[in-house]
Amino acid sequence: MDADAKKTALRMIPYGIYVLTTKAGDGTIAAATVNWVTQTAFAPPTVVVGVKTDSGTYAALKDSGAFALNMLGKGQQGIAFTLFKPAVVDGDTISGEPFQLGSTGVPLLDNAHRSEEHTSELQSRRNLVCRLLLEKKKQHRYKLHTARTTYLN
Amino acid sequence: MDADAKKTALRMIPYGIYVLTTKAGDGTIAAATVNWVTQTAFAPPTVVVGVKTDSGTYAALKDSGAFALNMLGKGQQGIAFTLFKPAVVDGDTISGEPFQLGSTGVPLLDNAHRSEEHTSELQSRRNLVCRLLLEKKKQHRYKLHTARTTYLN
Repeated sequence: MDADAKKTALRMIPYGIYVLTTKAGDGTIAAATVNWVTQTAFAPPTVVVGVKTDSGTYAALKDSGAFALNMLGKGQQGIAFTLFKPAVVDGDTISGEPFQLGSTGVPLLDNAHRSEEHTSELQSRRNLVCRLLLEKKKQHRYKLHTARTTYLN
Repeated sequence: MDADAKKTALRMIPYGIYVLTTKAGDGTIAAATVNWVTQTAFAPPTVVVGVKTDSGTYAALKDSGAFALNMLGKGQQGIAFTLFKPAVVDGDTISGEPFQLGSTGVPLLDNAHRSEEHTSELQSRRNLVCRLLLEKKKQHRYKLHTARTTYLN
């Protein structure tokens, strides 16, 4: 067994990068960059997300029961990098990124990936709004959350 | 809710492409292209793989209890495309792709992604050999298999 070779092979499994946003019942807005996301069912669409258990986002997410996955496109590493650090909410920005509250009260980043396929401003922004379904066992510092996607807005 | 917009967002979650190879107890060699693979733990390294329940590969995998994930690199779509169809074993080739049996008896494709990081021929080929741990519930035509990576060879 070659541990380095195994690690290199495991690193060939691709992962995306997303900003998870949520709002706790007391109004606390939280956001964090996440990269472990996978879709586990088509109907109804279900995703599983890994969230650090020692983060403020984790506490807010548990309280809220809903969150948005803000999809990032090429050239948006800046947003992801910024939100590896604790989010700073100031008015209608999260760490400098403008957001609006969606109809479920979940913050949606204005600068989430924009698709060229849609001309409508609302549809072109890619925020996947999810409802928390269940929480799975702790894997080291992460917990895996199963969520059902509800709608985009 | 906009179903098309949701679908577009869900499609932004990246997936890789792999050839899963295995050998049943009766010597039957099976191979299939898979794309739903994710790592769920670091120590011990654990991956989850979705396998079609109506495939010969699924039957061989259950019988074998071990398999290889042959990592594909850029420009290797040809191998993946070929193995979306039923594999044809002829001597030491699977649908025209040369293979060797690893020390656990699992077929390893010679043309799996080669890393430039290693000079050793053996280490440069990326075949992740896995032991089947458990089988999870059927999701439509797929079953999710949790596997522990054992070694590379």
